[in-house]
Amino acid sequence: MRVELIAVGDELLYGDIVNGNAAWLGRELADVGLPVAMSTVVGDTTKLIAEASRGALARGSGAVLFTGGIGPTQDDLTREGIAAAAGVALHRDPGLESALREAFGARIARGGPRVPEMNYRQADLPDGASPLPNPAGTAPGIVFEFGGAVSYLMPGVPHEMKAMFAQSVLPDLLARVGQPSVVVHRVLRTAGMWESAVAEALAGEVTRLAPVGNPTIAFLASGGQTRVRISARARDRASALALIEPVETAARAALGRALYGVDGASLESVVLDALRARGETLAVAESLTGGLLAARITDVPGASAAFRGGVVTYATDAKASLLGVPAGVLDAHGAVSAETAAAMASGARELLGASYGLALTGVAGPDEQEGKPVGTVYLGLADETGVTTRLVKLPGGREQIRTYAAVQALDLLRRKLDGRGGTPD
Amino acid sequence: MRVELIAVGDELLYGDIVNGNAAWLGRELADVGLPVAMSTVVGDTTKLIAEASRGALARGSGAVLFTGGIGPTQDDLTREGIAAAAGVALHRDPGLESALREAFGARIARGGPRVPEMNYRQADLPDGASPLPNPAGTAPGIVFEFGGAVSYLMPGVPHEMKAMFAQSVLPDLLARVGQPSVVVHRVLRTAGMWESAVAEALAGEVTRLAPVGNPTIAFLASGGQTRVRISARARDRASALALIEPVETAARAALGRALYGVDGASLESVVLDALRARGETLAVAESLTGGLLAARITDVPGASAAFRGGVVTYATDAKASLLGVPAGVLDAHGAVSAETAAAMASGARELLGASYGLALTGVAGPDEQEGKPVGTVYLGLADETGVTTRLVKLPGGREQIRTYAAVQALDLLRRKLDGRGGTPD
Repeated sequence: MRVELIAVGDELLYGDIVNGNAAWLGRELADVGLPVAMSTVVGDTTKLIAEASRGALARGSGAVLFTGGIGPTQDDLTREGIAAAAGVALHRDPGLESALREAFGARIARGGPRVPEMNYRQADLPDGASPLPNPAGTAPGIVFEFGGAVSYLMPGVPHEMKAMFAQSVLPDLLARVGQPSVVVHRVLRTAGMWESAVAEALAGEVTRLAPVGNPTIAFLASGGQTRVRISARARDRASALALIEPVETAARAALGRALYGVDGASLESVVLDALRARGETLAVAESLTGGLLAARITDVPGASAAFRGGVVTYATDAKASLLGVPAGVLDAHGAVSAETAAAMASGARELLGASYGLALTGVAGPDEQEGKPVGTVYLGLADETGVTTRLVKLPGGREQIRTYAAVQALDLLRRKLDGRGGTPD
Repeated sequence: MRVELIAVGDELLYGDIVNGNAAWLGRELADVGLPVAMSTVVGDTTKLIAEASRGALARGSGAVLFTGGIGPTQDDLTREGIAAAAGVALHRDPGLESALREAFGARIARGGPRVPEMNYRQADLPDGASPLPNPAGTAPGIVFEFGGAVSYLMPGVPHEMKAMFAQSVLPDLLARVGQPSVVVHRVLRTAGMWESAVAEALAGEVTRLAPVGNPTIAFLASGGQTRVRISARARDRASALALIEPVETAARAALGRALYGVDGASLESVVLDALRARGETLAVAESLTGGLLAARITDVPGASAAFRGGVVTYATDAKASLLGVPAGVLDAHGAVSAETAAAMASGARELLGASYGLALTGVAGPDEQEGKPVGTVYLGLADETGVTTRLVKLPGGREQIRTYAAVQALDLLRRKLDGRGGTPD
């Protein structure tokens, strides 16, 4: 079945917002074996919407997914456009209208503003069309068969669109093509391995287990981490998970200790959870990352249960005065050195009274420092038994080096906490 | 003139990347009074590209801007698609081919890899078309008049596309519609004023000065700051600046001290430049922002000239032990209080030996703290003469509150440094 997307909105054409809905729908539909054949953006006029609809049908599309233009205001014209394309009138649906009156009435009862009569346009349906529930907003969606195809009208607000797509549109679409209607994703999250190394690790056994397109495996690299997404389609969730299971087991074995969590887990939350579970705490000392590591950790709600705090010693002499890095170490080895990273880690641990001290010092660029090239980063990790250090060489510009350095530091601690001593694979 | 965009690439349809090029071009074209009428994404096949081209012409477009599909590999088929749409053949342009041989030869001489013969496809032109220089890459663009319209083929790589659009496509397009071909933007950057307040401040005199669409004024709010963009079109840069000048003067007067910089300046760079100019330095103490303020400051290359470092006292007792906040202050007023913010600022200033200490303490959420609601933030700013504090109440969720808090703190220091004592307007 040929599938097309049509997004409606002047704000998309004029670049006030990016058409992220099309990218999201493109991924979701590709995942179920229904790749999008064409994607169009049109402005807020009935004529252009109708033209775009007719164009998609003329190209032989079996399904056309609209986003945007089904709200209450005058420039929400997707209902009008689709009715014009089908050559039918709009009628006000009594059931939808009374549901809207009820929803708005409840709002007004809670002290909300009066609802303009125009808002009831959201209860209008083209003759012959049916409504789709909106699990996350007031504007109902529409499903409408005409011209030899099915058209779905969804909201433009991304979280409303996504909820309606998952709840109504995707199951309806898959039923029409006779496909199993449940798609389950399992995301395996790795740190400390480049994307190419992850792909290579999974090339043999794992690829053999997923050869026919169900389940599928995708590699997603961003911010110095690589995710492995295993997706399966089946009649129900349990059957999809059964398809995923052998691939996941093989992938876990191949990834080894690079795997830190699944699905929604973040490296920061995994580290904080491990610390909390052990009743331990963390302090950080940063130089090139300048607070970025602490900011990432404290981005997790509840971080205070395990995170004591941190020190940003951007000036070299502050490493001595605040963290107690010996002047002799700074003179002999430089601020960017394993010895300084070790002393910073111990200093932060003591200063903040934490179980672990985690430190970074390095060269973020644009210029080299102490004769060390951009991307040189030393990590230090101190606990009651002593200090471990590590040298990493990171690619890219200033922002990427800072991000990757923070990830490498978190990963050093994560491997330490999983009970095998913080050694690399 | 009706303008359409056509982006070519399976990776766009399948959502591997978002069509940011369309948004960027939409903004640029709207700025010069040529709003995009329709935007399409098609996959990497000659047939679909040709269909999309014919569709745009059939809808009466005068200009069609293509992005993507003009690289060297087999799936780069925009040249083939447009030739098919026009019903002409492709020929290899000798001038383009020898330029490519020269560019690749220089690469190989520097030790680069052999260049496959396929790469010379980039020298192919539809009969009757002309090349456009690529200021940022090897793939030449194409301008081609057929079917009563002009088509431009640009690369999909954003920085190459933007460079080619600015250098060749936009001037050619504007010449065709007989419009002045130079567009100049002036961006006025503000902090400490909400977008609605900025818009209101500029509503009278400034709007009177820009009533006819040239220059235009746009308000762009993001991350707790509001930018005012004044755009003018003219024959040349000097004439455009002359159009901008009276509007900018009036806008500056209306914005007052909320204006912190123009064009590419950031709040962080303005603060660091002011510190450097005065030979002064900064230390920060953070609680709810957890390192975010320090990370933003150190994101600026060269920050070390004025930034001494910072302390993240996430645990309440670290505020006492590390920053010397008196236990009595914490007991009597709480960790989230003006008194604690003041003591943190003084403590950071002394601990790191800086001219200024800037501190934040507050409630980022999700839960309230010490009976203070989410969004309550106290700022402290210490110098040799004493400490100033400020209470701000910030909207939104955890991430927004942390971001806005960092901006408010930077803005407090920025106003202090501009010589009028750090008082609000």
